[in-house]
Amino acid sequence: MRLSQFHLRTEKETPAEAEIISHRLMLKAGMIRKLAAGLYTWSPLGLRVMRKVEGIVREEMNRAGAIEMALPLIQPMDLWEETGRWQKFGGQLLKIKDRKEQEYCFSPTAEEAVTEFARNELTSYKQLPINLYQISTKFRDEIRPRFGVMRAREFVMKDAYSFHLDAASLDAGYRTMYDAYTRIFTRLGLKFRAVFADTGAIGGTASHEFHVLANSGEDALAWSDGSDYAANVELAEAVSPGARPAATEALRDIATPTQKTCEDVAALMGIPLQRTVKSVAVMGVDADGNDQFVLALVRGDHAVNEIKLTKLAGLGEYRMATEDEIMEHLGSEPGFLGPLNAKKPIRVIADRSVAAMADFVVGANKPGFHIAGVNWSRDLAEAEVADIRNVIAGDPSPDGHGTLGIARGIEVGHVFALGDKYSQAMNATVLDANGRAVHPLMGCYGVGVSRIVAAAIEQNHDDAGIIWPDTMAPWTVAVCMINPKNDPAVTAAAEALYEELQQRGIDTLLDDRGLRPGSMFADMELIGIPHRVVVSERGLAAGQFEYRHRRASEAESLDRDALLVRLGA
Amino acid sequence: MRLSQFHLRTEKETPAEAEIISHRLMLKAGMIRKLAAGLYTWSPLGLRVMRKVEGIVREEMNRAGAIEMALPLIQPMDLWEETGRWQKFGGQLLKIKDRKEQEYCFSPTAEEAVTEFARNELTSYKQLPINLYQISTKFRDEIRPRFGVMRAREFVMKDAYSFHLDAASLDAGYRTMYDAYTRIFTRLGLKFRAVFADTGAIGGTASHEFHVLANSGEDALAWSDGSDYAANVELAEAVSPGARPAATEALRDIATPTQKTCEDVAALMGIPLQRTVKSVAVMGVDADGNDQFVLALVRGDHAVNEIKLTKLAGLGEYRMATEDEIMEHLGSEPGFLGPLNAKKPIRVIADRSVAAMADFVVGANKPGFHIAGVNWSRDLAEAEVADIRNVIAGDPSPDGHGTLGIARGIEVGHVFALGDKYSQAMNATVLDANGRAVHPLMGCYGVGVSRIVAAAIEQNHDDAGIIWPDTMAPWTVAVCMINPKNDPAVTAAAEALYEELQQRGIDTLLDDRGLRPGSMFADMELIGIPHRVVVSERGLAAGQFEYRHRRASEAESLDRDALLVRLGA
Repeated sequence: MRLSQFHLRTEKETPAEAEIISHRLMLKAGMIRKLAAGLYTWSPLGLRVMRKVEGIVREEMNRAGAIEMALPLIQPMDLWEETGRWQKFGGQLLKIKDRKEQEYCFSPTAEEAVTEFARNELTSYKQLPINLYQISTKFRDEIRPRFGVMRAREFVMKDAYSFHLDAASLDAGYRTMYDAYTRIFTRLGLKFRAVFADTGAIGGTASHEFHVLANSGEDALAWSDGSDYAANVELAEAVSPGARPAATEALRDIATPTQKTCEDVAALMGIPLQRTVKSVAVMGVDADGNDQFVLALVRGDHAVNEIKLTKLAGLGEYRMATEDEIMEHLGSEPGFLGPLNAKKPIRVIADRSVAAMADFVVGANKPGFHIAGVNWSRDLAEAEVADIRNVIAGDPSPDGHGTLGIARGIEVGHVFALGDKYSQAMNATVLDANGRAVHPLMGCYGVGVSRIVAAAIEQNHDDAGIIWPDTMAPWTVAVCMINPKNDPAVTAAAEALYEELQQRGIDTLLDDRGLRPGSMFADMELIGIPHRVVVSERGLAAGQFEYRHRRASEAESLDRDALLVRLGA
Repeated sequence: MRLSQFHLRTEKETPAEAEIISHRLMLKAGMIRKLAAGLYTWSPLGLRVMRKVEGIVREEMNRAGAIEMALPLIQPMDLWEETGRWQKFGGQLLKIKDRKEQEYCFSPTAEEAVTEFARNELTSYKQLPINLYQISTKFRDEIRPRFGVMRAREFVMKDAYSFHLDAASLDAGYRTMYDAYTRIFTRLGLKFRAVFADTGAIGGTASHEFHVLANSGEDALAWSDGSDYAANVELAEAVSPGARPAATEALRDIATPTQKTCEDVAALMGIPLQRTVKSVAVMGVDADGNDQFVLALVRGDHAVNEIKLTKLAGLGEYRMATEDEIMEHLGSEPGFLGPLNAKKPIRVIADRSVAAMADFVVGANKPGFHIAGVNWSRDLAEAEVADIRNVIAGDPSPDGHGTLGIARGIEVGHVFALGDKYSQAMNATVLDANGRAVHPLMGCYGVGVSRIVAAAIEQNHDDAGIIWPDTMAPWTVAVCMINPKNDPAVTAAAEALYEELQQRGIDTLLDDRGLRPGSMFADMELIGIPHRVVVSERGLAAGQFEYRHRRASEAESLDRDALLVRLGA
């Protein structure tokens, strides 16, 4: 592409509204423009990058045997009511009435629509397994759209759905997609990690997330330094630290007039934070369906994992207890809560690490006081024990090999083994080899195509701008001409090089705008072209081109042949 | 593609709900499946065809220098209010409220959104001309969606928008798009015609429609046999037939007790239909803005052109007169209306051909009577004369060369010279060479990508199914194996041919499903593969393949080399 025949408009100023680096750089580079909250126009530059991502996703999906199709974006309410998701999906579902007052939604995902297709098209086990996918615009009505295209309302997603006769086939199909995703993110040149993940609202039996690693990532990932174990912190198991030591201290009240946090109490007492226990009061339901007051205990240096908590009996839809409920059950205000001396019978759930503690400190259920030297069995009944905390760096890996570290990631892909959740709800069946109607098992597999563009920038940038991996770059090489008007030989040499690189299949940009070198180089760096070649009068006189990789600190002089080698041409 | 690894599901039955052949064949071939009224799932087979069309459209747009981008599908009300189209677009605009009760629409076209982009991005005449396009899903909330994807609510459209400093540049840009469209439809292998068209609701100064010719087309097109003149009948000028003959007959009442139509009156009187005049009563407004009763006169064998009528003063939003209004002004019931003996002063508009008539017959404004021997000036005042009728076959071409014929067409493309309608309304300006802010002139250019698929079928089918032009076909060649299980050599030869054709860049389908020849051939004919090669034991023994073009009545035996030549490999 000759840049004079393209539309590029970079900005000098850093846009004030952008909170994260990818959003700032996409605006500065002119890749996107905001039309309304969470709605972005993709400029020609931005779209080039998105199409490169889309192309790699499509190639790898096809290579994996998936078959592309296209489901309507607008989908009728009836279909979503069959699975109950018309209600369950919540406010993120953009609901629409047409001129006849019929209700529809703008599809945020397409399990219902693809199962509708499948229940009509798939009738025999001989048609299975099959994996159907589409790459299309999706919509989620985010409460607070932000971070540019990272959390936009309108976005581009690849969504695939597989159908299987049995669990072994689903496992194989799931693995095929896992491998395809690994190839996709590898080809995109991104540092990424696949982690065990919670199946969440979509439901199902197994799930992995693919994360682009970046310090700004919204997700915390736990990974082992001694194995390939990796999981979202939401899910990563915190193993028991082992046997409980014997009690050595006596129970005693500690005056903590203003110390309401474990940190403050530990500092006052001069003990490690690991000796204190945090009490979190929540409301669940008991076996009879009545409200149940629950005290969840985690070590002072740990945090309650809300998702793990929801998996315990009666806590599926728990909420935080109110101050009134806390007063009613414990007789204290927050800040001094603990499992001893409750006013009413309560359910106590101790994290595995709390269950392994002796001589610990808890709130006294008395304003201004904590209790030290607490020991299980001696001072309070053994509690229900469960894994209810987030793992932290240094925890042992749950697979028994190595120690966990914590990394930050941006979720860009997700594979789910759904089982028969949707085929049951929508009564999709096929006949098996014995002529019996069975519900096929399903998997679903998403890639956030537009989000990958932003995630790649979060991982790959410097003060000058974006640094694209070669495969995602709008152009792989930029050919820049210095003072072309002064010397027609510069133009001729640049044009010849441009034509040659294009012919060799290297996607090349010829910067023929006639800008001064400083402005031209600043633009090429901002928009992240990985390879820059400068054609100048002086260089030509010496038979040399100036080559610089976007990550290199220095340029090098190369003759034509060496340059072609360097560019892989 | 090996068909065993694809999803194809053809239907034996002709679907009852489909009114037109393309809809029936797309359902039978399994290209689309209905999800809800006007909403279609594109199966893998259907999507392959749509992607071929999309690919050719994209290549020709790029070749013409247009630059691809992507505007949001969901667009805020504010933007559409700037041009007044939030109201004016009418019920076809799908309006949406988000969770915060903000109003949006699902874009049916994107003049506003692209002008918003342009008014921020384009600041100098040096950036002009520029043509920005996208290929994306659009939505129109049709009152009566029908004919499958021909008039669906959700559809895929290529929409392009050009910006120019002056009229000469707009003309050149318009011509560039006209030529690109000509290449697109030529490459798609379709018989098409570009015609002058009405600019309609989008507005503007010049417009051509591109129609795929098909007997089932909704549009009537007039074309000259003596020049390249062609126009939508909505717009085609009906020229004056020349000087009026002298009066020869006396005015006289004719009793027409049950004859209410020109046809019946002409039959009763034994005169040609061309001697009668039809009177159509409508209501417009006069110069003061009051209701005005208007009688439009066309020859008995002609039809009033509603669009031409709306272009006359006071008739911009005319409606048909009610029976009460007719009685009030003419004193008669419908069926016997005419311009003589009105009860009140009325406005009479005579079509050019009526103005050139003598001794004609009109209704008498008296139930059961017509008047014959009517002559202008002698019997009634000379009327306002205008072109208010549809041209018919045999009319002289308005460019003075040849005679008009009428063809039926399906509109698949439209180019508009918009002028400054949108840049004015939205105050988009650029600085010209003198530093003055000017509103750029715009053009807009649409191609109905999904509609082309259906239109191509309307034009290209037979009793056995679809007949794709090579460039649109899901696969160009089908390689069919006869009884592969009986003879491994058949499989081997078919596989080898398949691999060779694929390597030579010919998109080939290998039908490896193991069906009986009849079923296999019926499927290949139904889904319209243009070239079929049959590999059989008997053929191989003779060193021959059986080749048949989809349009050929007979198959031929060809050896490998002759086959490759025939397939252009």
